[in-house]
Amino acid sequence: MKKHGIILFGHGARDPRWKEPFERLAAKLRAARGDQPVALAFLELMSPDLPTAVASQVAEGCDSVTVVPVFFGQGGHVRKDLPEIVEKCQAAHPGTVISCATAVGEDDAVLEAVAEYCLREMGR
Amino acid sequence: MKKHGIILFGHGARDPRWKEPFERLAAKLRAARGDQPVALAFLELMSPDLPTAVASQVAEGCDSVTVVPVFFGQGGHVRKDLPEIVEKCQAAHPGTVISCATAVGEDDAVLEAVAEYCLREMGR
Repeated sequence: MKKHGIILFGHGARDPRWKEPFERLAAKLRAARGDQPVALAFLELMSPDLPTAVASQVAEGCDSVTVVPVFFGQGGHVRKDLPEIVEKCQAAHPGTVISCATAVGEDDAVLEAVAEYCLREMGR
Repeated sequence: MKKHGIILFGHGARDPRWKEPFERLAAKLRAARGDQPVALAFLELMSPDLPTAVASQVAEGCDSVTVVPVFFGQGGHVRKDLPEIVEKCQAAHPGTVISCATAVGEDDAVLEAVAEYCLREMGR
């Protein structure tokens, strides 16, 4: 069976509580994806970093890995830092196809859910 | 009629394209809220900052203003920086009730939408 890993890529922060939503998101994806690998990775301040997470999924036998930037906007971290890291990961693991999704905050259904949350918080 | 403003509070970034999802989110909320004020504000690198956005909504006649942190996790920016800024805004505008929501990434429906996006990107 082909293995297709997903890595949720976040910025990272000093406060360990910052990553709670990322862990909840990973748990939702694990529940939905059966035994397909799901991992977190961070740009800075938290571990693992992306090369470590990619190497781990390659070691698990992933034929392909999709990196999803869990960012709202696409600034320098997503447009510049991330492609550079992914390029190095791809060079290090030529037998695995490593691809990047668009940042989650660009998705309209995600923005709809955020808007609904705002309206609930305001009592509409 | 009472005016209840909402301010979408983001981190800010150097790349102006970073804020596109925030502008789309604000447009969704304006469509849903009729003539109730909706504004963006940023912690750094982009303008306006939060005190400027709050002062503007107070000048528009808002009795209350809700600040919604458009962040995934609640780290130092949301737990420490934001309350300090809001406290100063509240002191500057005692006639308006200024409150803060929990970061949008803590909301389960938002995380569900992000998970659905990830699954779509993976071909499930």
